[in-house]
Amino acid sequence: MRISELAEHSGATVATIKYYLREGLLPPGSKLGERRSEYGDRHLTRLRLLRVLRDVGDIPVSDLKKIVDAIDNESLSTHEMNGAAYDALARTSGEVSPDMRMLAARVVQEAGWAHVRPESPALDDLAGLLGVTVDLGAMFDIDHAATYLGLIDALAAYEVSRLDTAERIEDRDAVVQQMVIGQVVFGQLLLSLRRIAHEHHSALRYLDKPPADTEAGRFDAPQPDGA
Amino acid sequence: MRISELAEHSGATVATIKYYLREGLLPPGSKLGERRSEYGDRHLTRLRLLRVLRDVGDIPVSDLKKIVDAIDNESLSTHEMNGAAYDALARTSGEVSPDMRMLAARVVQEAGWAHVRPESPALDDLAGLLGVTVDLGAMFDIDHAATYLGLIDALAAYEVSRLDTAERIEDRDAVVQQMVIGQVVFGQLLLSLRRIAHEHHSALRYLDKPPADTEAGRFDAPQPDGA
Repeated sequence: MRISELAEHSGATVATIKYYLREGLLPPGSKLGERRSEYGDRHLTRLRLLRVLRDVGDIPVSDLKKIVDAIDNESLSTHEMNGAAYDALARTSGEVSPDMRMLAARVVQEAGWAHVRPESPALDDLAGLLGVTVDLGAMFDIDHAATYLGLIDALAAYEVSRLDTAERIEDRDAVVQQMVIGQVVFGQLLLSLRRIAHEHHSALRYLDKPPADTEAGRFDAPQPDGA
Repeated sequence: MRISELAEHSGATVATIKYYLREGLLPPGSKLGERRSEYGDRHLTRLRLLRVLRDVGDIPVSDLKKIVDAIDNESLSTHEMNGAAYDALARTSGEVSPDMRMLAARVVQEAGWAHVRPESPALDDLAGLLGVTVDLGAMFDIDHAATYLGLIDALAAYEVSRLDTAERIEDRDAVVQQMVIGQVVFGQLLLSLRRIAHEHHSALRYLDKPPADTEAGRFDAPQPDGA
């Protein structure tokens, strides 16, 4: 298809497509003449990925290049390729104190996540957040974190196991796209479900042990214990 | 203490304090004279809460008033008071299709979260996110969600149980503050830990079943299975 058709099918503007071509984010089409090129499904897939990375992953253009290079470098394993996208997603929030960096390392060790690269930006991200909990006087209690970390481990193991089919996908663009959607969209979904679950469990707690001023009939059609 | 001392101790500017007083977010001090008032610990606690709600919770000033009113209305139970803050934290992302609203209700039913108010904004938030998964072609698979929802339920139950001490806190400001920190900061912490756990489990998977082009020595000092 021509560039105008590619724009139509992908939803990207011709200007955006030309920009991606210039930046090397989109591979060139096959030359049909002086000023005409033919584009195919591969370009559509890539444009879809770039939209997900930008809209969903909120990844800046400068990082898109790193991800695309990792996809196009077929000597990199799927895992290394995904690593490039993982790293672009980890937002480090400025300086991180050595204390918090050490606490982060302890948390990861406690959780048994031995295959995490020591230089992973995700560790700085964690250290920064641990710093925030300290600043707020709500420090993460590593000595009582085994149950908590165990649940997160089980959740992540389950999520990764569900990607089984994606792993066999030949299309490297689609693998990265699924990974980013899993991290970002399903991350938001997790927080949303967690909030709802908190409302439920908080209700159970306060309905069982009402404070002095409670009235039990507050919930529409309350059910006994999660029925 | 005087307003200038309150500013000094709280880190808020005098202008911010005066604004909060005008808006009814901060209760008035005891009048000492025509233009002088005395402020106490209660004002410090409230200023700390307002900072957490704004900085951590990213809650707009218009919603702060609802939360503060719920705190100050002692006829509301702790749970109802927290509900006001939960609702302010749920960001509904515009229109939500009735289909997604129904899917959200099914998810919540499947999870057994029967004490969630049917009018909770968190349900609209969930419906909006489910819509995003559909748009991205990565629809939430409710028919295989039992394990996933079970893990989130266990996680939330655990987190709520850990708030045990807060529940007994007399200070309603502190209860809301702890709830918001739990939702927002520990929500971010959860995502950060989940990302690290994904890196670990993804490595385990790809190291066990390497794709054609993998090289196993990529990780510094790899340990056998989470040791």
